[in-house]
Amino acid sequence: MSRIYIEDLANHVGEEITLHGWLYNKRSSGKIKFLVMRDGTGLVQGVLAKGQVSDDVFGKFDELTQESSFSMTGKTRAEKRAPGGYELDIRDIRVISISEEYPITPKEHGVEFLMDRRHLWLRSSRQHAVLRIRHEIIRSIREFFDNRGFVLLDAPIFTPASCEGTSTLFETEYFDLGKAFLTQSGQLYGEAGAMALGKVYVFGPTFRAEKSKTRRHLTEFWMVEPEVAFNDLNDNMELAEEFLEHIVQSVLKNRQKELETLERNTSFLEKVKRPLPRISYDDAVAILKKRGHNFEWGNDFGGADETVISEDFDRPVMVHRYPAKVKAFYMKRDPENNDLALALDVLAPEGYGEIIGGSQREDNLDLLLSRLREHELPEEAFSWYLDLRRYGSVPHSGFGLGIERTVSWICGLDHVRETIPFPRMIYRLTP
Amino acid sequence: MSRIYIEDLANHVGEEITLHGWLYNKRSSGKIKFLVMRDGTGLVQGVLAKGQVSDDVFGKFDELTQESSFSMTGKTRAEKRAPGGYELDIRDIRVISISEEYPITPKEHGVEFLMDRRHLWLRSSRQHAVLRIRHEIIRSIREFFDNRGFVLLDAPIFTPASCEGTSTLFETEYFDLGKAFLTQSGQLYGEAGAMALGKVYVFGPTFRAEKSKTRRHLTEFWMVEPEVAFNDLNDNMELAEEFLEHIVQSVLKNRQKELETLERNTSFLEKVKRPLPRISYDDAVAILKKRGHNFEWGNDFGGADETVISEDFDRPVMVHRYPAKVKAFYMKRDPENNDLALALDVLAPEGYGEIIGGSQREDNLDLLLSRLREHELPEEAFSWYLDLRRYGSVPHSGFGLGIERTVSWICGLDHVRETIPFPRMIYRLTP
Repeated sequence: MSRIYIEDLANHVGEEITLHGWLYNKRSSGKIKFLVMRDGTGLVQGVLAKGQVSDDVFGKFDELTQESSFSMTGKTRAEKRAPGGYELDIRDIRVISISEEYPITPKEHGVEFLMDRRHLWLRSSRQHAVLRIRHEIIRSIREFFDNRGFVLLDAPIFTPASCEGTSTLFETEYFDLGKAFLTQSGQLYGEAGAMALGKVYVFGPTFRAEKSKTRRHLTEFWMVEPEVAFNDLNDNMELAEEFLEHIVQSVLKNRQKELETLERNTSFLEKVKRPLPRISYDDAVAILKKRGHNFEWGNDFGGADETVISEDFDRPVMVHRYPAKVKAFYMKRDPENNDLALALDVLAPEGYGEIIGGSQREDNLDLLLSRLREHELPEEAFSWYLDLRRYGSVPHSGFGLGIERTVSWICGLDHVRETIPFPRMIYRLTP
Repeated sequence: MSRIYIEDLANHVGEEITLHGWLYNKRSSGKIKFLVMRDGTGLVQGVLAKGQVSDDVFGKFDELTQESSFSMTGKTRAEKRAPGGYELDIRDIRVISISEEYPITPKEHGVEFLMDRRHLWLRSSRQHAVLRIRHEIIRSIREFFDNRGFVLLDAPIFTPASCEGTSTLFETEYFDLGKAFLTQSGQLYGEAGAMALGKVYVFGPTFRAEKSKTRRHLTEFWMVEPEVAFNDLNDNMELAEEFLEHIVQSVLKNRQKELETLERNTSFLEKVKRPLPRISYDDAVAILKKRGHNFEWGNDFGGADETVISEDFDRPVMVHRYPAKVKAFYMKRDPENNDLALALDVLAPEGYGEIIGGSQREDNLDLLLSRLREHELPEEAFSWYLDLRRYGSVPHSGFGLGIERTVSWICGLDHVRETIPFPRMIYRLTP
């Protein structure tokens, strides 16, 4: 395990080392030949000089095809002009496996062609950058909650019923117990966790069988959902803005190179610092009207509406207090206006739409019961959830952040399909 | 968000503060009454002295039932004899919500009774300890890989086919694409990731529709699966032992209090340090024979066999080189004996059985193809997986660690059902 990776080269300048990887590229310049190796951590150029190595080693240049695996041994040298900043003067090459003709070439390929070869497409620098940023987003999310005393609460994937009807649920036969539905959100379980542990976060995959073919929809996506006992809507907004700042600043700090690879304009990201603007649903409707956008008070915002609203701000904007009738049954009503729910959505800038949805939860047993009935939801299935209001109910709040939309926004991608290693969409289940 | 939690009391001695939580316990001693509050981070005793507070506040003692939510304000005082080491001299109490009669009392309850009330059972100190240790195990796992340059690779949950037949798979209708199966392992995707990124880890829920009612089986459980390009079986064992040491030592370091709550004898855990003993399958069979255990060479080990083998060691034991016919098609054969697979299982001590299963993978295209045919697996479905051997194949290895079995072992539990917030078993899908 003392293997040397390309990302560690700075620590091995002047040393003779062996690197293991794949051929990314090669070119020839008279008696000097260049082999660019990738090993998953970076790229480095190996230099083969005729006469300096045996003819056998020199001949390996011709043998190696794109993506062939090999190791090369030689002395490391700092070289500002080389990709990555270092070069290796090759003394020896060991061929591991010669690749068949690699289907992904520097020319342009269609998205479906690449998606069908997703297992190979992942080898490109652009996909590396996206996946490393995804990793940093997830790492920083867990760091945020771990450092603030939240307990991780892995909610179940198999659930007996749903919050919001079964039409968009995937289902599976579950032994003699009938059907199990794949979770759309761990929130209700997170609430039980908050009553037990004070502050928790649920983090796992969620599933929606929506027949949406938009650039924002996957059937399988990851979501993180903090839930905090005794937090009201205001506390929830404070948590959300501190959280978003932490994620974005972590990526800016730790994944600058990858943002450059993606040619991401980071000026919008640098502005993601507290406080974030807070506007009410009413304010948001006023913005739409001001912009001449046709919108009726009382509706929920669609993607196009969200884009128009967010264009008024240079940072994510927190929109609170939505009409209760467009929001879920479990949201607490605004004590100052019973038609409003204490909901919170955060809209990303640059047209990326909603990345956070949350609320203060209804903590009154009788009100929650009547909401279940209004929404014609099965009371029996929610009996355990109602228990949270029977036994020491407290004000509490939380929200959910969709990982793929966040990755898409931070990376500046125009479709969520590149934000996850193997995306699942209505028309794609492979590879 | 500047709320004070019980775990922070050491920083607030002598200050008047307000705590929010639930009534865990109460008792009376003449003119002094004690209210034990839990807030999810710990327990603290509030002291009510008659004459020192208004009769109204003093009267709240009678009002508060078990699990009622309330806040109490008063001065913090160090008190060695009190649970947690601090007490609060109460000046004021605010009742938030009086709890109905709480179903979980200090008396013994049956497991099914408690499991039916899992959402409430999570409020007990014992469950807090288990979940906090689970959290620390997961945190330390991610820390281990993050600090070693591994990239997180979230493998898909919906898969079009399976490694090991469909009999133990959950399935769901997937739009017009037929059936999707819930993943049993992200390994094949992890291998694609390792070829792209050098070293990756998959970490997510996995699913098995096994009709097993043992104390080691859940239908839904979490697994972490590292995969490393250029690692052979030996490297794989080194990684596994360093990994296990890191997890166990992190729990010992950061969750001592919780281990005490569980009355865990930590002497076995303290011994989990490198190097771990390594024995071959043949050695393991010899141990079984030495112990007078009836076992035929060539079979896989059952739970009882694993217990007998592990009793020969005071630490986890790594067993390598199993008969190929009891192992999966993708494992590489031992170059010194074609009947053996370069497999690795790690057996936990104290009868906790297999916690890690892994191998070096077959990297030869033709051999892998013939194995697929031997196992009568659909070649077409594995075409993308075979690509990993067509385009720059390299030796590579990895393993999977089951989170719930690891939690069970480290906590010293006698059933995996308490290792996850809401367990799913063949006969349980609720709450």
